Amino acid sequence: MNPERFSINQMTVRQLSLPDLVSHCVRLGIRGVGLWREPVREYGLEAAARLVREAGLEVTSLCRGGFFTSDDRLASHRAAVDEAAALGTDTLVLVSGGLTPAYPDLPAARARIAEAIGELAPYAGERGVRLAVEPLHPMYAADRCAVSTLDQALDIAERFPAEQVGVVVDTYHLWWDDRAPAAVERAAASGRVHSFQLADWTTPLPAGVLNGRGQLGDGVIDLRAWADLLERVGHTGPVEVELFNDGLWARDGAEVLEETLERFLAV
Amino acid sequence: MNPERFSINQMTVRQLSLPDLVSHCVRLGIRGVGLWREPVREYGLEAAARLVREAGLEVTSLCRGGFFTSDDRLASHRAAVDEAAALGTDTLVLVSGGLTPAYPDLPAARARIAEAIGELAPYAGERGVRLAVEPLHPMYAADRCAVSTLDQALDIAERFPAEQVGVVVDTYHLWWDDRAPAAVERAAASGRVHSFQLADWTTPLPAGVLNGRGQLGDGVIDLRAWADLLERVGHTGPVEVELFNDGLWARDGAEVLEETLERFLAV
Repeated sequence: MNPERFSINQMTVRQLSLPDLVSHCVRLGIRGVGLWREPVREYGLEAAARLVREAGLEVTSLCRGGFFTSDDRLASHRAAVDEAAALGTDTLVLVSGGLTPAYPDLPAARARIAEAIGELAPYAGERGVRLAVEPLHPMYAADRCAVSTLDQALDIAERFPAEQVGVVVDTYHLWWDDRAPAAVERAAASGRVHSFQLADWTTPLPAGVLNGRGQLGDGVIDLRAWADLLERVGHTGPVEVELFNDGLWARDGAEVLEETLERFLAV
Repeated sequence: MNPERFSINQMTVRQLSLPDLVSHCVRLGIRGVGLWREPVREYGLEAAARLVREAGLEVTSLCRGGFFTSDDRLASHRAAVDEAAALGTDTLVLVSGGLTPAYPDLPAARARIAEAIGELAPYAGERGVRLAVEPLHPMYAADRCAVSTLDQALDIAERFPAEQVGVVVDTYHLWWDDRAPAAVERAAASGRVHSFQLADWTTPLPAGVLNGRGQLGDGVIDLRAWADLLERVGHTGPVEVELFNDGLWARDGAEVLEETLERFLAV
């Protein structure tokens, strides 16, 4: 793929400090970076914004708002929007939350998620931040995200203007779904592909199934087919690589960053 | 639920020998049992058939045929049908297989699965055995079963007469899918709900995600809603409880069997 479209999600190389990540990106000619709220807050929001701006990097997304089923405080969700705006990114990724005592089944959780996004969307729109609803793999439906398919995410997003609410297309979460390609077309038709992320699927899955996302090319997903699909529907924006992987985190961060860029180019 | 509909899948209490399983079933008034090929073969097919028949048990299913993407020998798939017929069950559960070097992506794997079922179906029909295509949770799409949704299973099954090919409805695999209830109605409309299995969803998932199926009531699935749905569409047959669970396997088998029956009655 075109190196100009490559964006490294901070979590992929979380062993790197933010300044180290930024300087390695500059050295390697990487132009985009997806940031996470916790390390940004740790470094300081304004300082982080200045660091990436002065390095000429584009913040392609901020991860993440959401968990609406366990946090009903609108103010805390608005804070995530404010942080995205401060970092100069137009995209806030939402991981919507799973089942909780207050929302103990999927219909209740999904209704709560739609309601919470409705409360937040106009605020985000006013600040130039698009909410990107990320469907997570069905194996996370209970404990992380009751939105499991791209169609479900679109059913929520389409209630709002596209400049307020769209979706994340992440190969790791969607690769198994034979309806996902049609849903990608549906999303693109109304301009709602707010983020496109790559990760590969490797087995066996680790305990807790959180930190086993495969390096590009190590797994079974036809990443080229996904890239072609997204290009075909007109998505020409940044492509983030977001890997949660204990093996990658145990290695030298700069080496992992270089490897990830190489793998991206080879897709 | 009605105790007369309860069937214990052998895997739930795999620590019990077949004679012990049968005698505990008789003692507890359990009328149905789902068997697995490996322990049956170990005990002897004819001896196992005689044992369950003389105890008055109904064999509600045999697990499992399939893995069509790694085994292209029709004879070995026919052997599974023969074993089902010998045990007197009308239902052979199929776990269809994941990605392999010969079928390295989902479209290829799914095409192979449909083709293999087409080869096997008439043979099964002649022997009074219904093939039951089991959609497995999408987290198994790569390594166990490329058929991930009930609609996908029905897309295959509906190419054949219902007395030859139907589907398995297993709450563990389908609970997350908002389209599953409509698919259950679709399956029932053509008489293809060949097996209904219960297991609960608990987190965190164990490494490998195979042996973490929750005891009924321990997880988040609204099992009552599923039972109601199946009753509403006219499924009045046996309901199998099939749990793969390291914790349950470490306990006394008879105790687990009694607990499982109690939990079933409480649904």
